[in-house]
Amino acid sequence: MNDRNGNRNGTHPKIEDVARLAGVSTATVSRALNATGRVREETRLAVERAVAELGYTPNFGGQALASKRTNTIGAIIPTMENAIFARALQALQETLSESNVTLLVATSHYSPQREEAQLRSLLARGVDGLALIGIYRSEIAYRLLDTRRVPFVILWSDPAQSTHVTIGFDNQAAASDVAERVIAAGHRQIAMISGIRDGNDRAEARVAGVAAAMQAHGLVLPNNWLIEIPYTLDDGEQAARQILTKTPRPTAIVCANDVIAAGVLRAARELDIDVPSQLSVTGFDDIELARAVSPPLSTVHVPHRRIGSTAARLLMDWIITGNRPNSVTFPTAFMARESLQRLEVAVT
Amino acid sequence: MNDRNGNRNGTHPKIEDVARLAGVSTATVSRALNATGRVREETRLAVERAVAELGYTPNFGGQALASKRTNTIGAIIPTMENAIFARALQALQETLSESNVTLLVATSHYSPQREEAQLRSLLARGVDGLALIGIYRSEIAYRLLDTRRVPFVILWSDPAQSTHVTIGFDNQAAASDVAERVIAAGHRQIAMISGIRDGNDRAEARVAGVAAAMQAHGLVLPNNWLIEIPYTLDDGEQAARQILTKTPRPTAIVCANDVIAAGVLRAARELDIDVPSQLSVTGFDDIELARAVSPPLSTVHVPHRRIGSTAARLLMDWIITGNRPNSVTFPTAFMARESLQRLEVAVT
Repeated sequence: MNDRNGNRNGTHPKIEDVARLAGVSTATVSRALNATGRVREETRLAVERAVAELGYTPNFGGQALASKRTNTIGAIIPTMENAIFARALQALQETLSESNVTLLVATSHYSPQREEAQLRSLLARGVDGLALIGIYRSEIAYRLLDTRRVPFVILWSDPAQSTHVTIGFDNQAAASDVAERVIAAGHRQIAMISGIRDGNDRAEARVAGVAAAMQAHGLVLPNNWLIEIPYTLDDGEQAARQILTKTPRPTAIVCANDVIAAGVLRAARELDIDVPSQLSVTGFDDIELARAVSPPLSTVHVPHRRIGSTAARLLMDWIITGNRPNSVTFPTAFMARESLQRLEVAVT
Repeated sequence: MNDRNGNRNGTHPKIEDVARLAGVSTATVSRALNATGRVREETRLAVERAVAELGYTPNFGGQALASKRTNTIGAIIPTMENAIFARALQALQETLSESNVTLLVATSHYSPQREEAQLRSLLARGVDGLALIGIYRSEIAYRLLDTRRVPFVILWSDPAQSTHVTIGFDNQAAASDVAERVIAAGHRQIAMISGIRDGNDRAEARVAGVAAAMQAHGLVLPNNWLIEIPYTLDDGEQAARQILTKTPRPTAIVCANDVIAAGVLRAARELDIDVPSQLSVTGFDDIELARAVSPPLSTVHVPHRRIGSTAARLLMDWIITGNRPNSVTFPTAFMARESLQRLEVAVT
């Protein structure tokens, strides 16, 4: 990234400079930046590029100033339909509510393009702060955050992987720990069903963690035993079916979240493969589902609610004091339940 | 309810009238109505009472006018941690997003007091419209909605039970249908685990529906076989344990939602009671959990996403055209899965 206030000649760039560089009128620049939606996509992109290039800061033009709070915090999450985000959002909202601050919610469906559009829309509304998920976004998105000078926190990622204020945990270490336990239980034939890694640092880190643990024990994760799918029960079931109907069959499947693992349990049941005596399965997240399925899932407990409430507290502190807070790393915990069993027991 | 514009002498009541009746200053009235939080609870209540009595409409004082849209819609739901509300909210937000409208989210934890506080807060922000859950709220809350003249829709309830724009379904008929099917499968010893009925018309209607169907067949729902609990897995498990460890034992348990039913399955497993051969269990909602548990739950499919997207569309139409839309009743569907079995089969 360039110099944060990176305009070329040391003076504050004006809206006229942006208009000239983008080849549009100042009114169009204004419309594009305020996300009123009456601007063609290519024009908007040209304006954003000019804004990024010049380091133009619309704040100076009279937009949300530090002294002019809106008492709203924006959150952009992949989807509310994943219980982990719903939980965090609930805690975020409850904690903000204590300060009489309202939560604006938008979703991205794991798409950086949609996140960028939502980001622009929330910034145009003048939110006091933002909670975002994960570290991957476009340079334009980071630039927008920079130029608007809105406090923002990143949730779910490993704080060690980001220069921004991050409230999360070490996804790679947690996934390594799961694989270590599966290996310690005697398993050598291990498959993994992962989330889509592209654009998702948490999914990426979890695969890296499992692969690293296996490698440390001289094991490999074969390509046909590593399947990437969206985080749904149906996709999990289908991926498991693909793995379990071929020979050789793994004795354990490590899943990137509990929803996928629940899908694996369904596939195993339909294929008459007993879990855990014939197949061990692990999840990640420890949502309610993990204890509702049969057998209950061995999984990684992630403190979703504390991530949400901490985000609210740090954002409010930052907004009120103006002091950027430090990142927070939460510990995770392996929850040993019936779905993971020693291979020796399984064989007898 | 009184006359909608019910001020006494035909003139528009002024803020001074409210202040006089409430025995406070006009500045206090303003603070109370704008929910800035610097007003004592009893003062705020006195102001609200005066506003309700006089039919005072703060809009005339310069608050959100129809012509001055904020492009935000507020939603107050019981909790995001229940998948049914998360799903509807997701669809609501996605549909609003197409119109470049942002969603403000607040939660009430099924408390009318908290809903009223959240309502006041959202109204003070000048939302263009509101989505609320269920028909039960205080007269003050309804009065607030009336006087502010903000379009609002009620979700989840039976439109026949409300004079307001309602997007929902006939909870009682759907629950009756479940009970009819349980009875048709030969069950006579039927228990029900319900949500908390107080303040929740959906929970109330579901119990009424089950009781009516049983009564039509000359059956009674004994008091000790009707347990009201919060909608959680742990509470469901505990309630089931209470019912299943006593003699006589029911042959079927009808649950007011899928989460409770998943708890019943857990209790049955721990008590070594086989579902469905020794006990039938039904849920309500058809969330992902219903198909993830073992055996999969017979349940009522509720179109949560369509409720959310319809709410968004009706609200936007109403806001843009000024014409109040009609209520919408969605059909529900019974999903027959393994957890409900014929009693004859179970006995052999």
